[in-house]
Amino acid sequence: MTTNTNANTANTALQSVIWSEDRLDLLDQRLLPEEIVYLPLTTSEDVWEAIRHLKVRGAPAIGISAAYGVVLGSRDADSIASWIAAVNKEAEYLATSRPTAVNLFWALDRMKAAAAGFADQGLSLEACKEALLTEAITIQSEDEETNRLIGEHALSLFKNDMGVLTHCNAGGLATAKYGTALAPFYLALEKGITLRVFADETRPVLQGARLTAFELQQAGVDVTLICDNMAGMVMAKGWVDAVIVGTDRVAANGDVANKIGTYSVAVLAKAHGIPFYVACPLSTIDLNTPTGAEIPIEERNPEEITEGFGKRTAPKGVKVYNPAFDVTPNEYVTAIITEKGIVQAPYSDNLRKLFE
Amino acid sequence: MTTNTNANTANTALQSVIWSEDRLDLLDQRLLPEEIVYLPLTTSEDVWEAIRHLKVRGAPAIGISAAYGVVLGSRDADSIASWIAAVNKEAEYLATSRPTAVNLFWALDRMKAAAAGFADQGLSLEACKEALLTEAITIQSEDEETNRLIGEHALSLFKNDMGVLTHCNAGGLATAKYGTALAPFYLALEKGITLRVFADETRPVLQGARLTAFELQQAGVDVTLICDNMAGMVMAKGWVDAVIVGTDRVAANGDVANKIGTYSVAVLAKAHGIPFYVACPLSTIDLNTPTGAEIPIEERNPEEITEGFGKRTAPKGVKVYNPAFDVTPNEYVTAIITEKGIVQAPYSDNLRKLFE
Repeated sequence: MTTNTNANTANTALQSVIWSEDRLDLLDQRLLPEEIVYLPLTTSEDVWEAIRHLKVRGAPAIGISAAYGVVLGSRDADSIASWIAAVNKEAEYLATSRPTAVNLFWALDRMKAAAAGFADQGLSLEACKEALLTEAITIQSEDEETNRLIGEHALSLFKNDMGVLTHCNAGGLATAKYGTALAPFYLALEKGITLRVFADETRPVLQGARLTAFELQQAGVDVTLICDNMAGMVMAKGWVDAVIVGTDRVAANGDVANKIGTYSVAVLAKAHGIPFYVACPLSTIDLNTPTGAEIPIEERNPEEITEGFGKRTAPKGVKVYNPAFDVTPNEYVTAIITEKGIVQAPYSDNLRKLFE
Repeated sequence: MTTNTNANTANTALQSVIWSEDRLDLLDQRLLPEEIVYLPLTTSEDVWEAIRHLKVRGAPAIGISAAYGVVLGSRDADSIASWIAAVNKEAEYLATSRPTAVNLFWALDRMKAAAAGFADQGLSLEACKEALLTEAITIQSEDEETNRLIGEHALSLFKNDMGVLTHCNAGGLATAKYGTALAPFYLALEKGITLRVFADETRPVLQGARLTAFELQQAGVDVTLICDNMAGMVMAKGWVDAVIVGTDRVAANGDVANKIGTYSVAVLAKAHGIPFYVACPLSTIDLNTPTGAEIPIEERNPEEITEGFGKRTAPKGVKVYNPAFDVTPNEYVTAIITEKGIVQAPYSDNLRKLFE
């Protein structure tokens, strides 16, 4: 796989997933903010590897990338039957790239159902392939519109000059555009509303420092970077009026899986009487997962903690615990903000109503 | 200043401050765990610089180093009067190296008072200088005995197979020996008691990863390294039965200043019903500071967060908030463990009694 570098200028929102005629150009998020490199992906193996190794991350962006991965992995089929078989096989394969983000499985299921539907309609093989690519492009464009709606609803909860803390990156880089948790900040800018954002750096992979601080700074949002362990002090100082985060999966009861550290932030917010909001599209809500206890939590390589900066920062051979996500129980969640509006407890009832 | 490297073998406790005949050999803690380098310091300026730039850190070790710094800075005086003047001047100077750790001021005051006492006794200039060196050596050896006593008291609160979480490094490297918060772990080893320790890595300078995990691993303690933002999840899993930390200053009302992130850990501990212990010598308790609100909180260079590992991990020019310490209000503190025993609320009364 070769790489190409696009010279992006400041204040241009970077797009993390770009379909370019016959390949997927993926912004390598591991290299941000120092390098802006797009990886040209031409096979489903490329896409699997990019998801697994966090070149692309963020639940919606993972789902979009996987949808294109199905297109790439099935495009050489020479009959409708082998095409359907390839779509299903590639979808199963891509589903193994990461275990927690439900958008991945949602996007792959949608691609499989779409392919079956096109075949059932009696389209030609070429028309089927074309329609499946259109489906992936639609997933991406729907995500942008979804996020704008999430941002509008979220912004209705914020007032001018409020301080808002966020963890990890649920921004434009994690989605098609705007992001989920960061969408209200972009919309606030458009409307002339000032928000002071605190971005947790989010160890071990530093998505908050490398991505959230980067994309908000580029856009002109007032953002202050802190270490994760400073969130409590910043709250105690009265600088934080609300917390907003994204999520990788919401269970049917409103338990929320998100980047490790989210649970600590939620407990701290509650202790300080600060509302804790979760922003996500409906595709992140999984009514088939009853509670957070059933959400698989990925554990990642200890080296992310012990030598994550190109330099060893812990003794060799030390025991490490490195969960990529944690689960925030629903009692800590003030509201879940979706494209269909703002949902509050009781979540078991109110999340289900969103899908009726 | 040149450096020399001592080849320490595993399972040998490293000593952070060593007086070597006519100079101070200081273990450069910034380079741990990858390099073990002792810096030979020969002037008070060397010592000031070593404290300011975290080559030596930990409240007791800072105090000990500063005491030797007074010796180094006053040893060329050629009369009793100029020697007393030099002691006082160097003490004032060294007090400007860092603002939060009260042991620094405690040790410097003790050295000034000792010098005045020796002069009053009519000792010769050479005898005065010798006695002042002995005073610094005594501060160091008393610290070791103090820490052993703190460890005995702390260990009385722990049972076999308990999980104990600690933040930053209040271990042997931060003190003469044993440490304060880590002392019970060393004594548990000696007594065959098993404790499972969780060490927060402690951003931004990673004292937990580089120092606590390192010294406990070397000693054979069961230690697991986690990122700061994992503490909440580890508590929620039921793996933590107690938290113990050191402190840089305890106010008269029991408010505790310690490494940034300690307050978040204390809030999380309370939310999970886990006791939160603070271990320190009496020299860290400052009855002249009424509450935590009067403790000056040092803010450090943003680069500790944005490029702390020789690699930039945040966008250029981003706004950063980097307090080195936070204050944990006394209501979060289950007990303060000193060489004179275990103190509980009401702290305003009970801390004062320690000094009667």
